[in-house]
Amino acid sequence: MTDLSFFHTPTSVAVIGASDNPDKIGGRPITYMTSLDYAGALYPVNPTRPTVQGLQAYPAVEDLPEVPDVAVVAVAGQAAVEAVGTCARLGVRGCVVMSSGFGETPDADGRRQQEEMLRAARETGMRIVGPNTQGLADFGSGAVLGFSTMFTEQPPADGPVAVVSQSGAMCSVPYGMLRRRGIGVRYAHATGNDADVSAAELAASVVADPDIRLLILYLEDIRSPAAVEELADVAARRGVPVVALSGGRSAGGQRAAASHTGALANETRVVDAFFERLGIWRARNSADLTAAVDLYLQEGARPAAGGGLAIVSNSGAICVLAADAAADHDLRLATFTRETRDGLVAALPAFAATANPVDVTAALMTDSTLFGKVLPVIGADPGVDACVIGIPVAGRGYDIPAIAADVSVFARDSGVPTAVAIAQPEVGEVFRAEGLAVFDDEDTAVASLSQVIRHAELTTAAAGRPRLSDRRPGASVSTLDEADSLDLLAGLGISTVAATRCRDVEATVAAFEARGGVPVVVKGCTSAVTHKSDLGLVRLGLADAEQVAAATADVLDIMARNDVTGGVLVAPMVRGALEVMVGAHLDPVFGPVVVLGAGGTAVEIAPDVRVLLPPFTADEARAAVASLRMAPLLGPVRGEEAADVDAWVDMAMRLGEEMVRPGSAVVSVDVNPVMLRRGAGAGATAVDAVVLAGDGATS
Amino acid sequence: MTDLSFFHTPTSVAVIGASDNPDKIGGRPITYMTSLDYAGALYPVNPTRPTVQGLQAYPAVEDLPEVPDVAVVAVAGQAAVEAVGTCARLGVRGCVVMSSGFGETPDADGRRQQEEMLRAARETGMRIVGPNTQGLADFGSGAVLGFSTMFTEQPPADGPVAVVSQSGAMCSVPYGMLRRRGIGVRYAHATGNDADVSAAELAASVVADPDIRLLILYLEDIRSPAAVEELADVAARRGVPVVALSGGRSAGGQRAAASHTGALANETRVVDAFFERLGIWRARNSADLTAAVDLYLQEGARPAAGGGLAIVSNSGAICVLAADAAADHDLRLATFTRETRDGLVAALPAFAATANPVDVTAALMTDSTLFGKVLPVIGADPGVDACVIGIPVAGRGYDIPAIAADVSVFARDSGVPTAVAIAQPEVGEVFRAEGLAVFDDEDTAVASLSQVIRHAELTTAAAGRPRLSDRRPGASVSTLDEADSLDLLAGLGISTVAATRCRDVEATVAAFEARGGVPVVVKGCTSAVTHKSDLGLVRLGLADAEQVAAATADVLDIMARNDVTGGVLVAPMVRGALEVMVGAHLDPVFGPVVVLGAGGTAVEIAPDVRVLLPPFTADEARAAVASLRMAPLLGPVRGEEAADVDAWVDMAMRLGEEMVRPGSAVVSVDVNPVMLRRGAGAGATAVDAVVLAGDGATS
Repeated sequence: MTDLSFFHTPTSVAVIGASDNPDKIGGRPITYMTSLDYAGALYPVNPTRPTVQGLQAYPAVEDLPEVPDVAVVAVAGQAAVEAVGTCARLGVRGCVVMSSGFGETPDADGRRQQEEMLRAARETGMRIVGPNTQGLADFGSGAVLGFSTMFTEQPPADGPVAVVSQSGAMCSVPYGMLRRRGIGVRYAHATGNDADVSAAELAASVVADPDIRLLILYLEDIRSPAAVEELADVAARRGVPVVALSGGRSAGGQRAAASHTGALANETRVVDAFFERLGIWRARNSADLTAAVDLYLQEGARPAAGGGLAIVSNSGAICVLAADAAADHDLRLATFTRETRDGLVAALPAFAATANPVDVTAALMTDSTLFGKVLPVIGADPGVDACVIGIPVAGRGYDIPAIAADVSVFARDSGVPTAVAIAQPEVGEVFRAEGLAVFDDEDTAVASLSQVIRHAELTTAAAGRPRLSDRRPGASVSTLDEADSLDLLAGLGISTVAATRCRDVEATVAAFEARGGVPVVVKGCTSAVTHKSDLGLVRLGLADAEQVAAATADVLDIMARNDVTGGVLVAPMVRGALEVMVGAHLDPVFGPVVVLGAGGTAVEIAPDVRVLLPPFTADEARAAVASLRMAPLLGPVRGEEAADVDAWVDMAMRLGEEMVRPGSAVVSVDVNPVMLRRGAGAGATAVDAVVLAGDGATS
Repeated sequence: MTDLSFFHTPTSVAVIGASDNPDKIGGRPITYMTSLDYAGALYPVNPTRPTVQGLQAYPAVEDLPEVPDVAVVAVAGQAAVEAVGTCARLGVRGCVVMSSGFGETPDADGRRQQEEMLRAARETGMRIVGPNTQGLADFGSGAVLGFSTMFTEQPPADGPVAVVSQSGAMCSVPYGMLRRRGIGVRYAHATGNDADVSAAELAASVVADPDIRLLILYLEDIRSPAAVEELADVAARRGVPVVALSGGRSAGGQRAAASHTGALANETRVVDAFFERLGIWRARNSADLTAAVDLYLQEGARPAAGGGLAIVSNSGAICVLAADAAADHDLRLATFTRETRDGLVAALPAFAATANPVDVTAALMTDSTLFGKVLPVIGADPGVDACVIGIPVAGRGYDIPAIAADVSVFARDSGVPTAVAIAQPEVGEVFRAEGLAVFDDEDTAVASLSQVIRHAELTTAAAGRPRLSDRRPGASVSTLDEADSLDLLAGLGISTVAATRCRDVEATVAAFEARGGVPVVVKGCTSAVTHKSDLGLVRLGLADAEQVAAATADVLDIMARNDVTGGVLVAPMVRGALEVMVGAHLDPVFGPVVVLGAGGTAVEIAPDVRVLLPPFTADEARAAVASLRMAPLLGPVRGEEAADVDAWVDMAMRLGEEMVRPGSAVVSVDVNPVMLRRGAGAGATAVDAVVLAGDGATS
């Protein structure tokens, strides 16, 4: 891992384009570093002023008493390019280029200028953050190489969370959320265009900091999967959970990202698979990024070990709604033991509910000790692995500090991950001050508990997975026809339908008869047509020689009329099986990708597919199959055995192995349908396939 | 509609069990009514004190100088029963019984006491709210017949919103949320066990108030659909949107609701269909209940007319994330006209994004007029029907009041429903003070816009729908065997498979041969076995007389060994069609229900179904089909025509008509599979069916 720590703890900082005005982007870094007692040397560079914000100013970087460790570039356009060039020449280690108007614009000049900066930096090994960045902030060292307004609005405090973001706003927003909740943030880094240093690379350096316990990451594209893998490795080694939001899941979002940070569109499903593979939690929106932070930081909470959720409230409705939320977020309710039930009956009024959920009722208004009585009983139940406590109404008449203390003792003593749902902010503050994880409502509380539990499972599953292979398609690619595609698959050890390639009517009739007269399909065999049915090139269920002859003549005629060359394929009808699909292709960023899912025409119009990034294990492929919407259809259903999922998984494994095999010419494979039979060992058969391969693959 | 307005604006109130302590449930109503200057007479009833909270107290209700309009009952158990009896005898119009320990407990005494109160009330026409209720509050009249702590924590202010809830907490929580956001609430009613007055009945009376513009409703069960229909009628007449949360969507939630308010479990899918039918928006959790309130109350906003969403932000990332949120919440992005694009280019810095989403960039920090320049251009675009404005970072250096004023002018002048996403509460306050709808993050903002747009569509579609018919199953019900079931369907004009009922091998072989030897299925025909395949009673694809004979002998043998009587059914195999299902049953609460969806074994293990409440129109049934997950499979797909959905819809209509036909003996119908063919007019055939009918239906 490249050492980027000089960006966090520079020994000296020059601000090029330093401003006396603390509200200009060239003024903010100086204001922040001064007020935070940054211990290194701070050099304002401004040719027009002797001092800037009370500090001695210098006309140019060359005039500084030393070569600064890092320079902040707050001048625009060509001046920025020149400043970067000078810094590189002088031996500055890193530049943070805040100015915009470079690679993120459609403007050719701006793009050229960005390239020029990169070239200058590469020549001397200088690193660049940006351009078009809000900049970096390390509240451990006080080095604020950025201009975010949020640091004025929500004063900083050092702490265990790091925020790294391609976007300035999505650095400031999580920072602000966390600070408003009293949580300390050490790093608030924004990287902008990621022309040189990427957000992931910087994040890896940040996560290596032994004081960091959680990383919040915002990306608009992933150009180098290897950098994210490196980050995930460091995070896994240190046990730091990573919560990432990757903007641009939709077509509209991708268009916006392109003009924001010049982002490339990543395929959403591939990013999902990639993050899951690395044990990174994918947030869906900005609120998601920080929603569960309190739970991630909860001290002494033991990991959930497959037990259930306990729900306790002074409101029956919150009991109801939290149980609904548990179902929505896939958490099982704990079933209490006999001892627990007895203990609760002894502790509570007669009209309270003593099963799970536990409703201590509005009696809490007159007896503030109720939580203190019931929680130890619940904490001792071996089946309880998480707890949500809902207090929707409290205030006058309630001893809130005593209740908060009781809940806090419970969370600490039991080690049960505990989320408290409190609708009144002023009540919530009392619980937060006790170190508890407090949420605005029952749904967010349960969703966050579910997140930390699932995330821990994800991280465990990710441990030890090999890195992605990186292989790119060859320059010259051609589509194989169906017969060649099936042959290629058969060569990989994949079971394919016994198809015969024929040139004319006599040959197809002979092929039909050679099979003993079982019904066959006749298809045009050509790589020139993708949707053969649309042209009438697929004839199913031909049961006698006449039908076969007529269909062959028809198909050959249609092909001739459409100037399509090629023969026809005769294959037996495969029935009594589930139609599934398996495919593979080379993603431009992530390399080889295997896809499996429901087959037939469904895949185009209502896709039910999962993506796997090879190398993957058979267990991982089975887990992907199990998470399909169609999964229930694969099990043993009324009167029928379970489908032979292993045969399907085997196909996916073989495709994955081929895609990462050095020297393979296969660029993409689409096998649809695969006919998957029911019964252990019943197997699966590839019935139709299209393979794209680099030249030479068919030989 | 029964007049319940005396509960809101009673001329006089007695509090039975009045307490001098303002933190006891018998003290709170007096404290609240005194401080809110309730204008009617207020009579504390307490046999042990001459005064209560400075007011003259009376030993018993009988001693009051007048018969009070309404009595609040704050005494427990048998004392409450006696108080209710006395009130009824004296001619009190309504009692609010706050005490718990009655119908919501498993305790037989408590349940009996609730019945006793009801009997006494019915004798004289007195109405009861509760028992086990937090009580009612009308902040227009100052009549607070309840004890919620929240009214102390968040002082009341009269306004256009009404909250009616079975649960006390789910009355207080939305009330508190709204008041914290400065929104006035006139009614905050909780009804508890709904032993007499139901939440829906009370809500209908509240919505009739001409000052009410929005109803927030929390229910734990629906016992009388008619009361909810009445409420929806009044709301529709007055144009008041209704947002309802019905707790107990999950099994765990239903268990909790049973012990909370004694709620019966409603079937979630039926409740969804019922609310949709009435134009009521179903919230998923407590936060959902109030999330979109600002938008519902936005003055002068024109209804969205099928146009698109415009996104404007000073952050590119928020542009990206809001576009992703629009995709998540089914809102289309607007495509700007040439004029709009030109206008934006003229107004913005060169590096800003002028397509939709519009990124005015961090340049807002130095030019606070940017929103004022671009918004009128966007508002004039005819394709813009909703707008989300994201300002994730602002503060020092920004002229926030000027920006807020510009946004407010835009929202008012354009009439475009506008949601502002602001992460900093102190900045949000400035916008809220301008009357704008402010949200914490882009996802909630977009979700709420989507909600009000979809809700308006729902309400429009609901207008003029007939009420539900109410019919209950007869006492004696029997299951028809497959042959009788199919015959009954045929009698309803539904196309069924041509099945022949046979007693022995000779008859099945004859039936096979009479069909010209096409492949058939042989099935045991008995009402005694539900899952015939599991027993081996279904034999498919029998292609010659020997196979038919062997299968028949087998099936009859298995039936004999299992002591199952009945014959066998011979029917042609139906192939080349989609397997769908249609069914109907009598819901214990909502009456006749029709279900349609994906068929085959899928319906049991991964249900993809929609519920319709008859009477419904063919258009409504087609819309239900279109909302199925399987819907894309029904359209014209590669090489095949669209499925004959009209034939399927026709079956659903015929079932619906039968279910509501007076005198029909049909209790439930399950037709699965229906073989649905492709091609206009190709039709659909019922292949298997089970009918439950009251006695006499088979004749």
